[in-house]
Parts: sequence; C-alpha cells; structure tokens
Amino acid sequence: MTRERIYLFDTTLRDGQQTPGVDFSVEDKIAISAMLDNFGLDYVEGGYPGANPTDTAFFSEKRTQKASFVAFGMTKRAGVSASNDPGLATLLQARSDAICFVAKSWDYHVRVALGCSNEENLRSIRESVEAARAVGREALVDCEHFFDGYKANPDYALSCARTAYEAGARWVVLCDTNGGTQPAEIREIVGAVIAAGIPGSALGIHAHDDTGQAVANSLAAVEAGCRQIQGTLNGIGERCGNANLVTLIATLSLKESYSSRFETGIDAVRLEGLTNLSHAFDELLNRSPNHQAPYVGASAFATKAGIHASALLKDPRTYEHVAPETVGNFRKVMVSDQGGKSNFINALKRRGIDVGKDDPKLDLLISIVKEREATGYAYEGADASFELLAHRTLGTIPEFFTVDSFRVMVERRFDANGRIKTVSEAVVKLDVDGEQVMSVAEGDGPVNALDLALRKDLGKYQAEIADLVLADFKVRILNGGTAAITRVLIESTDGDGTRWWTVGVSENIIDASFQALTDSIVYKLMKNRHMAGRIAAE
Amino acid sequence: MTRERIYLFDTTLRDGQQTPGVDFSVEDKIAISAMLDNFGLDYVEGGYPGANPTDTAFFSEKRTQKASFVAFGMTKRAGVSASNDPGLATLLQARSDAICFVAKSWDYHVRVALGCSNEENLRSIRESVEAARAVGREALVDCEHFFDGYKANPDYALSCARTAYEAGARWVVLCDTNGGTQPAEIREIVGAVIAAGIPGSALGIHAHDDTGQAVANSLAAVEAGCRQIQGTLNGIGERCGNANLVTLIATLSLKESYSSRFETGIDAVRLEGLTNLSHAFDELLNRSPNHQAPYVGASAFATKAGIHASALLKDPRTYEHVAPETVGNFRKVMVSDQGGKSNFINALKRRGIDVGKDDPKLDLLISIVKEREATGYAYEGADASFELLAHRTLGTIPEFFTVDSFRVMVERRFDANGRIKTVSEAVVKLDVDGEQVMSVAEGDGPVNALDLALRKDLGKYQAEIADLVLADFKVRILNGGTAAITRVLIESTDGDGTRWWTVGVSENIIDASFQALTDSIVYKLMKNRHMAGRIAAE
Repeated sequence: MTRERIYLFDTTLRDGQQTPGVDFSVEDKIAISAMLDNFGLDYVEGGYPGANPTDTAFFSEKRTQKASFVAFGMTKRAGVSASNDPGLATLLQARSDAICFVAKSWDYHVRVALGCSNEENLRSIRESVEAARAVGREALVDCEHFFDGYKANPDYALSCARTAYEAGARWVVLCDTNGGTQPAEIREIVGAVIAAGIPGSALGIHAHDDTGQAVANSLAAVEAGCRQIQGTLNGIGERCGNANLVTLIATLSLKESYSSRFETGIDAVRLEGLTNLSHAFDELLNRSPNHQAPYVGASAFATKAGIHASALLKDPRTYEHVAPETVGNFRKVMVSDQGGKSNFINALKRRGIDVGKDDPKLDLLISIVKEREATGYAYEGADASFELLAHRTLGTIPEFFTVDSFRVMVERRFDANGRIKTVSEAVVKLDVDGEQVMSVAEGDGPVNALDLALRKDLGKYQAEIADLVLADFKVRILNGGTAAITRVLIESTDGDGTRWWTVGVSENIIDASFQALTDSIVYKLMKNRHMAGRIAAE
Repeated sequence: MTRERIYLFDTTLRDGQQTPGVDFSVEDKIAISAMLDNFGLDYVEGGYPGANPTDTAFFSEKRTQKASFVAFGMTKRAGVSASNDPGLATLLQARSDAICFVAKSWDYHVRVALGCSNEENLRSIRESVEAARAVGREALVDCEHFFDGYKANPDYALSCARTAYEAGARWVVLCDTNGGTQPAEIREIVGAVIAAGIPGSALGIHAHDDTGQAVANSLAAVEAGCRQIQGTLNGIGERCGNANLVTLIATLSLKESYSSRFETGIDAVRLEGLTNLSHAFDELLNRSPNHQAPYVGASAFATKAGIHASALLKDPRTYEHVAPETVGNFRKVMVSDQGGKSNFINALKRRGIDVGKDDPKLDLLISIVKEREATGYAYEGADASFELLAHRTLGTIPEFFTVDSFRVMVERRFDANGRIKTVSEAVVKLDVDGEQVMSVAEGDGPVNALDLALRKDLGKYQAEIADLVLADFKVRILNGGTAAITRVLIESTDGDGTRWWTVGVSENIIDASFQALTDSIVYKLMKNRHMAGRIAAE
C-alpha cells in the first residue's frame, strides 16, 4: 500500500528563537540548519530577513542542500502596493527557496492589530503570494490565530485560507498561535477547512504547547487530513514551546497507526541519529538535555530496580513501547539499593566487568553499595563512580595516586579600598606513585579552588588529564539543617566528547566535592587505559 | 445543567517515586500529602507499605484529612489463600482509606512475570478486592499494561477489568504502563470496555508520557467515558513521567469544552494556588521549576518583544489562551514590564510596607530587585530577604550589626591513628553597635561552622536569637561548572513556630551561605521588634 507523505517543517530558527533565553548567532544558525538539513527535514525556516541584522546576514546565502530553505515575513502592508512595500522587497531578495508569510486570519486582529479592513487583509495575502511566485519562490501562508479566529468568525478565517490557496500557496498552515486549542477542536476545524475545498495535501499544522498537547494536536491534525507539520527541535519556542519535532518524528516513524499510513523524509537509518540530534542541539544551546524527554531522554528507557526491573530483563520488548536502539537511545536498568544479585551482575557485565555469581567479592561489593546508598550515595546518577567502586572492590584497577591532605580556606574581608573581597584558596598534597606533589590554587569558590589545585599537578599523569573538563556540578542537601548530609554530583567531559558522572557524599560539602572530583580524575585515567566500560548516559 | 464529577487521583508519592533521582523521606511524604490534601485532590496514593521501611512508616498513620488516603500493593500471590499472603496482610493493616491493587491484565505477563494461569490471576484479583472490602477499605484495581494487553488479547484484558468491577472495586483503572498508546487507541479501547459492561463512572485512566501525550491520552479517556484520572505533580514519574495533574487540573477547569461538562474537587479559588503548588513541589525536590511548563511556568505567559508584544498589551485576552491570574501566574512582557510597578506596590503592601507610587525609593528598589534577579537571586522563594531588602532600601530598619570579616577553613588529613579526619572551622568578626565581637567555632562542614560562629556572640542581641534554629538549607547551582553561580536558600524557625526563608547568591558557596545566614538573623531581630510583615509562605 502506498503511504502518504508527511512533510516536516522546522521553525527552530524562527519561532524557536522566541524562547526566553535563546538567541542564535549567525554561526549558530548555520550549524543548526546544517544539522536539520542532514537529518532529512523537508523545510528549514531560517528567520525573518529584514527584521534584525542576524537574520538578514543569515539569508545572504542559501544555507541548505536538500531541505527547502524558508524565509519568514509579513504579508504586504495594507494601503501600499506589493512593489512599494520595503518589507516585502527584503523578503523577495532573501536567498531562500520559499517564503512563509504570516497572515492574520482572525477578523478581530485584522481590525485591532492591523487596523485595516477584512478585504484589504485578503488582498495583502493574495498579492504577497503572487509576488513570491513571480520571483520563483514557493509560497506558504501561516494563518495566524486560525483556530481562535475560526471560532469567532468561521467564514472569514476560511476566506483567508482559501485566498492563500487560490493565489497559489503550496501550503496553507493553520496556526494555533495562542496554544489553547484542544485536539478534538483541531480535528473538527481541520475537517471543516477540507470540507470548504482546501485539500489536506495543501494544509499544515502549527501547534503550541500551552496545554501540554502540541504533539497531540499535530497528530490530530494529521489524522484529520493535514500533510505538513511545523515544529521545533526539542520543542523550544515562545511561552511553553512549539510542537516537538523530535517526538513527532519518532512517533510517525515507529507507531504502527501512523507508519502504516504515512512516511516522512526520515528513514530508519537516520532515525537512529535522533537522540544525537536532540542532544547536539541542547549542547549548542549550552543546556542539559531533558532526561525525561520522550524517546531521546536519558531516562526514557530507564527503570529503577523495582517491580519491573527483573521482568524487564527477561523480555524487554513487552516493557518498552519501542526499542531504544531505533532512535539511538539505550536501555538503562539503574543500580539502586533495591537491586538484587542478578541485577548487579548484569550492571557489571554492561560495563565490561565479569564477576562470578559465587565470587565473595561480589557480595562485598553489593554490601558496600547498599551501605553507601543508605548514607546518601546515588549510584544511579553516577555511573562512573559505580564502575570505579566495582573495580576497586574487585581489585582490578591500580591506585593511581593517594591524597595525603587538603586544605581549603575562604576569607571575606574589606580590601584597601573598602570593598568587600572574598578569596578562596586550596592546597592539595598528593602521593603519585611515591612522588610527593603539593599544589595550591585560588578559585571563584572553594570547590573551584580545590578542582584547580587538584588538576594542577598530577605528576606523571598530568598530560593525560589535560582535556578533562568539569561540565556540571550539582549539590543536594539530603536532610534539613546546616549540619545535614550533602551529596555532590559532578559531570565531566573530555576531548572525545565522552561524559561521565561521579558522586561524593559527606556532612561536609567540601569533602563531598573532593570525592567526586577525585573519582572523575581516576575515571579519566582508567578510560585512557581502555578500562572504562559503557559510559554514563548522555 | 449538572456537570459530571471527574475524580483526581494523585500518585506522586508512589509512581512519582520511580523518577530517577527522586527519593522521598517520610518527612517529604508527610509534607507532600498535606499539600495535595489541602489543594483538593480526591485520592492521595502514598506508596507501597511493606515494600520498604519509608513506606511502612508513612502508613503507620492516616496522613490526609479530606482526601482518600491510598495504599498501593500487589494482588495476592497465586497459590496461597488471601489470608495466608503476608504482602496482602501488610496492605490490609496499613492505615489507609483505600487500597489500590496492581493487577496484570496482559496474558503474556501473567504467564511470564507471574508464572500462573490466567484463571489464577483472575482469582487473585477477585479475592484481593474482596479482602480489602472485608476490612472496610475502598478497593481500586490498576490494570497494568491494559492497552497493550487489550491489543494482544482483548477478551482476557476485559475479563480482568470485569472481575475487578464485579468483585466490588470502586475503580478499575486502565493503565498505559509502557506509555506508547496513542489517543485514538485510548478512545477506541475505553469505548470497548464501556461497551463490555463496565460503566465509565467506575473507570480510571493512568497514562505515561513516553510519546509526549500523557495529558492528551488522559483527556481522550475522559471524553470516552473514564471519570478518574491518575497523575502526578509536575508530571514526575518513571522514564518520561506520568500524566501531569497540574496541567490537567487547569485544562479541566478552564477549557470550555471540559468545564461545561465536568467538575473536579478544585474550585476557582483553589485553582489560583496552582502555580504555587507546582513551584512548592519543585522546591521540595530542590530542582528548578520548568519555565516552559503549561499554565504554571515562568514563561507560560511571557512574550519576547516581537510581533506580538505591543498588540498583547493592547488586549491581552486575545493573545492568551487563559488569563494567567486564574492559575496564580502572571503575564510577563520581557522588554517593557508595564505591570511591574503596581505589582511591587501590592507586594510591599502585603508585607505592611506602604510606599507611594511616585516615591523615587520605589524605583530604586525595583531596579535593585531586577538587577539582583538577573544575577540569580530568587525572591519569590525568599520572602524574608525581599522584605529586608525593601526595608533597607526604604531606610526603615536600623543596621543592627555589620560584618568586618569572616574566614572559613576546611582541612582533611590523617590523624594520629591514620584515620582520615576533616575539620571545619570558622572565624567571624562583627561590629555590634560599636562593640567589636570575634567568635570562632568548629562545625560539621564549613556552613555549619560559619552558622555556629555567627550566632555564638551577637553582643547585646545575643539573648534575642537564642531560639533561632536553621530548619533547612538548599543549594542550587545556576549554571554549569564548578565556577558557576551558587544560590543558597535557608529556612529558619524560632520558638513561636514562625518560618522564614532567606537567600544568598555568589560565585562562592560560602559567601552565598553567609548572606542568607545574616539575613536570617536580621529578620529575626526585626520580627522581635514587630517590624516583620507577612511571613514567608510554607
């Protein structure tokens, strides 16, 4: 049976840019458009040329190879001709394959925001589409506030869509601009648009997540007939975000009810790069990936040892809604104090550590892990520390160095100019294979000072840790009061992009940080010797 | 027209506990169950008594006033009688109003995970429900893997549901355990269950977010006839999380298509506490609230200055899908925050501080708060620090003491017996109304030492702070790396049970802690003089 084609339209670089805290440079936009193009998206909307210098510069050349490169902008202003509208002229000059015009389709907004008549707005839509086609561009029209507009005045909303379609727009995109429309309303209104004569093959959906249903609304629109979906990487966007294309791509490809009827430009091989795509984008935004993201999150296929864990290992297929490998993710059964012996053996095996069921060292390791977890260690979030602990207990790694002592001092006082000044200094004494090493450093705080001092001189291992970088640092107080137990989690990366997590626990935050810092360094040394197993998920 | 009642079942403390990184103490569970109970949830599922010491202790008393307090557990094992099953006995002894049994409803899992016959599984369901009812408990049955089970063997899945219902279960809950079911399938299968004779008024839905549609699936089930929704605060839960009750509560209450047909136990007044509920829960988990969360996120009603901002200010109603005040959130236009000034005046008034609209000190205070919030202060979680800052800026409190300097040292070394020892010592120099005071103390960590030194001798104010106790201490790293900005929140209490929160922010965790500690002491002195206003919410 022939499957119908669903077209994927990415607006990460345009609507995604409206996300609080997100501001792409031209270089960011070049990198992201290449990611999207390589992945197989059909349309890459790059921004609004003429609206700001970044977007104007970005549209000075075409930035995609296969995907259609789209410039976004307003329809021509009312009261001027298309050839006399400078905004439209800028759009037509942009080096894009297609132009996506945003058009009002709610009569209230035509009156209040544009201040023109309903008929003038229709003329703007028509003449803008014609102008784009006249210069050889594919035209799309985003019907802004379409669903709210339809509820207020269905005839006018339909006139806007029909005008765009009849003028030659390849796609008429129905936008839930305020994000409050429910899936059942989407289905009904898309059905009404198709009944009014615009074929589903020319209709797109643009959904926002204000009620947590942008994905469901997009799929409801597809079921009702729309054949283009607009969305963003990881669902970034204004307010609560846009429809998450990462989630939608996986669902369209892997869920029988869609994959049997539809196809996208993304095949099974590309789909295996989905987790990477999502994480690479977060990396570019310099933010931690959402562990709970559908399909691609580090926890998406994770199970805490509990009522499901042992059954899961018997037959993962009936405990997972899709196979994690299909999207380039993997299964994770977390080490935790509820885990039994077979969980432990499996957890070690996945890290390349073989240990017999009856080895007394295994029992020792289990009892150490349980004891430590009872005092606040959380190995489920610190795979590298777990692996180190296993190697140490089983006696399968050397002791690279030992710590003789450390001292950290934080002092706040007034400087000579009467300004408050806080200084943090750390001194570390190590024994590296018999060689005494002593280092001192100042830092932005006590942990930073300690980190700098510790990595300043590791004797004969110093060159090996040159590319070690601390990527993240998390502190959790495990119970109330300032005398409470503190747990520190540290994320590290190195030159080849590997990431690993280590943990430290103590009544003393400095002590806890020091444990996690030293574990991170030892893990790196172990990794350099190809002794480290599966790397902590990221 | 009479609206049908939708029952809200919270499983934050049970299924939510499966979230990687989440581990509730008994105290956490007591605090969260009180939050849920006060907010108006119908059912609060507290955990699995007998499965671990925390849950067993938590169920030693009933923890809710109005909500039904629910214990979760397995149906009786096959091969033993209900009266001989120790797990079931523990469940029946728990101090709960209701018992929610989890039961397999996919024949494959009955065979592979339970290793018993289909008929034995039905008997376990029947006898477990009967045993619960015999001791006066309401019975619920979570039909695990119901939707996948239905697809594999509809007759058997329906038999499980019917057996539960006929044995007297108040609710038969259809669980999408693996989270991969699509809304259209949910609608169809719920319809089939109702057609098979189980009324919608006895059916619940339990959805997971593995395809980003837990909310949509829950609503699809309600449309198809289910009248109970299971979910968690902020959607925490295993893998990608459970259905987000915070989002669902708002949608059911505010969206015409639901509110015209249904009602929940949460009225419009309580709904205004929704944003607070969501943020208070994140605070308890010590994690940053999701800015993009539907309805309650800091960005949910935020607009970047762009094509919408000016029109939004003309008429917010047509640019917002609901009014932010209805859920206790507020509008945020990120460039020209015109609502700022009157919001501030109201916030001060609530704390008993009157300031005129044209007072230049008000503008100064607003600019200080904005500047500080931009560097990481979070006054919404630290009312006492906000109140102090206002008094200081307006010049309405005395300077009780000043800090000349402090010094904190943490040292780890081996003691005479070769054991590792870590010592923390702090020295504080104060000027108390012209009197020089210098104190030194050792503590369990640097912050504890600093706290002890600071409160050791406050000169003439010492007697006044004798009943001051630090109740909680939270640390959040605001961006990656060990050189990141650290925010410390401290909760204090005193003899009359008042609680207040103070905040400190610095690159240096010790410095940030010191700011929060001194704010706490000054607030206490102010409170003793009846100058403190409304106390921080808890």
